[in-house]
Amino acid sequence: MNSKTIGLCLIAITFSIQIKAQHGGTPPAVSPMPMKPEMTEIWEPEVPVITPAKTLGDAPSDAIILFDGKNLDQWVSQNDPSKPAPWKIVDNDYMEVAPGTGNIQTKMKFGDCQLHIEFSAPDKVEGESQGRGNSGIFFQNRYELQVLDSYNNRTYRNGQAGSVYKDQAPLVNAMRGPLEWNTYDVVYTAPRFKPDGRLDSPGRITVLHNGVLVQNNSTIHGLTLYIGLHNYPEAHGDDVLALQDHNNKTQFRNIWIRKL
Amino acid sequence: MNSKTIGLCLIAITFSIQIKAQHGGTPPAVSPMPMKPEMTEIWEPEVPVITPAKTLGDAPSDAIILFDGKNLDQWVSQNDPSKPAPWKIVDNDYMEVAPGTGNIQTKMKFGDCQLHIEFSAPDKVEGESQGRGNSGIFFQNRYELQVLDSYNNRTYRNGQAGSVYKDQAPLVNAMRGPLEWNTYDVVYTAPRFKPDGRLDSPGRITVLHNGVLVQNNSTIHGLTLYIGLHNYPEAHGDDVLALQDHNNKTQFRNIWIRKL
Amino acid sequence: MNSKTIGLCLIAITFSIQIKAQHGGTPPAVSPMPMKPEMTEIWEPEVPVITPAKTLGDAPSDAIILFDGKNLDQWVSQNDPSKPAPWKIVDNDYMEVAPGTGNIQTKMKFGDCQLHIEFSAPDKVEGESQGRGNSGIFFQNRYELQVLDSYNNRTYRNGQAGSVYKDQAPLVNAMRGPLEWNTYDVVYTAPRFKPDGRLDSPGRITVLHNGVLVQNNSTIHGLTLYIGLHNYPEAHGDDVLALQDHNNKTQFRNIWIRKL
Amino acid sequence: MNSKTIGLCLIAITFSIQIKAQHGGTPPAVSPMPMKPEMTEIWEPEVPVITPAKTLGDAPSDAIILFDGKNLDQWVSQNDPSKPAPWKIVDNDYMEVAPGTGNIQTKMKFGDCQLHIEFSAPDKVEGESQGRGNSGIFFQNRYELQVLDSYNNRTYRNGQAGSVYKDQAPLVNAMRGPLEWNTYDVVYTAPRFKPDGRLDSPGRITVLHNGVLVQNNSTIHGLTLYIGLHNYPEAHGDDVLALQDHNNKTQFRNIWIRKL
Repeated sequence: MNSKTIGLCLIAITFSIQIKAQHGGTPPAVSPMPMKPEMTEIWEPEVPVITPAKTLGDAPSDAIILFDGKNLDQWVSQNDPSKPAPWKIVDNDYMEVAPGTGNIQTKMKFGDCQLHIEFSAPDKVEGESQGRGNSGIFFQNRYELQVLDSYNNRTYRNGQAGSVYKDQAPLVNAMRGPLEWNTYDVVYTAPRFKPDGRLDSPGRITVLHNGVLVQNNSTIHGLTLYIGLHNYPEAHGDDVLALQDHNNKTQFRNIWIRKL
Repeated sequence: MNSKTIGLCLIAITFSIQIKAQHGGTPPAVSPMPMKPEMTEIWEPEVPVITPAKTLGDAPSDAIILFDGKNLDQWVSQNDPSKPAPWKIVDNDYMEVAPGTGNIQTKMKFGDCQLHIEFSAPDKVEGESQGRGNSGIFFQNRYELQVLDSYNNRTYRNGQAGSVYKDQAPLVNAMRGPLEWNTYDVVYTAPRFKPDGRLDSPGRITVLHNGVLVQNNSTIHGLTLYIGLHNYPEAHGDDVLALQDHNNKTQFRNIWIRKL
Repeated sequence: MNSKTIGLCLIAITFSIQIKAQHGGTPPAVSPMPMKPEMTEIWEPEVPVITPAKTLGDAPSDAIILFDGKNLDQWVSQNDPSKPAPWKIVDNDYMEVAPGTGNIQTKMKFGDCQLHIEFSAPDKVEGESQGRGNSGIFFQNRYELQVLDSYNNRTYRNGQAGSVYKDQAPLVNAMRGPLEWNTYDVVYTAPRFKPDGRLDSPGRITVLHNGVLVQNNSTIHGLTLYIGLHNYPEAHGDDVLALQDHNNKTQFRNIWIRKL
Repeated sequence: MNSKTIGLCLIAITFSIQIKAQHGGTPPAVSPMPMKPEMTEIWEPEVPVITPAKTLGDAPSDAIILFDGKNLDQWVSQNDPSKPAPWKIVDNDYMEVAPGTGNIQTKMKFGDCQLHIEFSAPDKVEGESQGRGNSGIFFQNRYELQVLDSYNNRTYRNGQAGSVYKDQAPLVNAMRGPLEWNTYDVVYTAPRFKPDGRLDSPGRITVLHNGVLVQNNSTIHGLTLYIGLHNYPEAHGDDVLALQDHNNKTQFRNIWIRKL
């Protein structure tokens, strides 16, 4: 609100009084000396200005483009990081897992980030449960947000699309059909470690799957493991983002990331 | 991952060993007796299935539509909740604040929720700082996510678009120009109170502004006040969602909400 | 600090300037209008006055005395809550587990609380690992703070004295010898559940063992289980505090609790 | 529990079944393959062993003794850290503020810690509100746990003994009379900062005042200020612990600290 115009000021004060009147009950804990509106205005530092994309889901001006359909220049092979990423680009639009070639990972390393990624189940629907359209997104090369064709495909709840694999089940199953593209909008908070290597605070993740909340600042309980209890065996810093080759021809497009 | 197929199993195990080899260092804290993959699968209860919208930003199947351009049936006047919402509908597309008529509020009450809302600054750019395109979204009728024309319009950082008003500044300014529509995708966690009325845990809010993270599970420090220190003066339950008449012709459209 | 005396005021201001000078760097985010000291004083409501005990470890005036050596009137048998607690009182000083009679539990129910309890390993040192001096304190009849003779007695780290059983290992092993009394000073925060029964926030526990921090607001991951993964299978409210008969003659004394 | 003895095992299983039977309702989320007790035992690394003091309140074996009545060797003047601490030692038992000489601070720097400290109001009761027995303990030289003679001495709730000064009021007033010694047992968690200097997580504090909980993992909202809104103006690492000269002859004794 603006205190420079008397009119607005009156509106503001009126509004404030309405709020109080409306809620009744005990008054807020107040200081013994009335304050002025300006006293709770914080002006510095100015918030950085960025330019959002024209279309929801596209990259804003401060994002790093990890994949825009043209090339895999931001990616390498995980089996041999000195080699290019061995997956396929189709129609200058999306990449497709080349089964048997192994995971791919970014050249850059990341910690806290906002990630947008789109994925599609393989064109041919086959297999079931974990065998259908399985892939995954590994934050810091360790913590997996599951990618799976979860459309009409029952599996364990902490292993379906939108789950933190074998850790946190999604709130809902918001999966689209196998010939449609899905989006993940992810806010990832990396785990923190103490100087001596012990865990200080666990990782956290918020995920919108096709615009629908499936993880709300969920705790990540440790390194993703296929077998056994999850925990944080060692301290680490920023690390690569990896996409999993799980032997299914899962497709990915429009991948961008913002460091937080 | 699927343990029923030997092939997949081998991939999984190989992958798991790669991870371990790759990160080296101290081994994870392990139990003295090896586990099986199935032991960390949780199958029940099945995750509810919903249908996402075709287009990012549109309502999924489990959303309550608060406004789709056709009518204000979900809203009433805040000055007199027995009266219809006095704001204007334009082109069967958006609503516009009718200055001087007061705030409007939903008929339904909400607590934890996911909200999608689109807004545009008034067509005519006038005023400055808090005087330009000012409105607001009040969760539980108390906690304001600020709406403002923050495009080329400096104001205090904790009062611009994307801020929790006079509480939390946004991470970035992702505002579009005054003739363009903006989106807020909000995950709101209501404050909890103890049976005796004391605060148990404060409210929390995550906001994507035009798809860009501006609040990441930020703490809401109390009832939004124009003047003075924020706090939680009283316990309350679910309450209406309100839109503010701040004397500017701010526009809103495509409003839907999901109870969490 | 007191603003009524000029002298003190000067000290305060000087101190405040010292702090600023000393830390250099960027100045604190300041409002555009200077405040007065009184504006951040909160006077109401007055903080309740209680009387602490003369001796550290003894009950303050607002504590509920659960056991003072005289009788077991606050306790019943867990096998049959209509029956008195079947354990033994020794020397009008402490109670001792009567092996085979089962757990005992309080008549009253508790949620958030501060608990002081003293325990001693059985007079005769026998058995090893989990077999030596095993008992336990169950908050809300579900979440176990382990009691064990952990003096020169290696066991699994998440099962020794000061652990949340099979969940959180203590930070250090602060156990006294078997003929000495130990103290636990515990701050317990109960889990919260949503109206539909889902977990809202997990339980939390802080424990000082013989005055030494062994749990620092640690997360309790669910119902204590001897076998399997911990979780929160069902919502519940306040419940009894229970002491475990694990077939060892563990001793307890000076038990008091404060509702938080 | 011990799985090596069949007897104990049976007790454990019986107990576990009792728990389940007793709570009824929905069964815990279970994996499709039963586990063994050993699978949730974590043995490594062994928890460090320390020796607690004979008497509650005294220093355990891993504490750093900051003051034991004999000398001020661990302290220096804050006005000139190259000079010895100018306060007075009385009876080889306690130190007393020498009004006008300024604060004193430790030679060592600390971050997360457990602190035990005892204090007494000045022998002569004079002044009122903030003028009576005022001193303070500054963690990391910035965040003040208030010391005041709060016995029959009303002041603002967020400025009395046990408060985080001008931030968090204590849960209760557990102050002893002016000729008696008080104890603070404090668990302090330092704020964390991101590499770029922004706050990552605020400080936290738990305080037992004379054995009674007055702060339960309370959030510290920033640098303690006599005037204005608290915030975190700059990143910092470990820093000295300081005791305040507020012109009152407050007394301190038995000060020890453990790094966490």
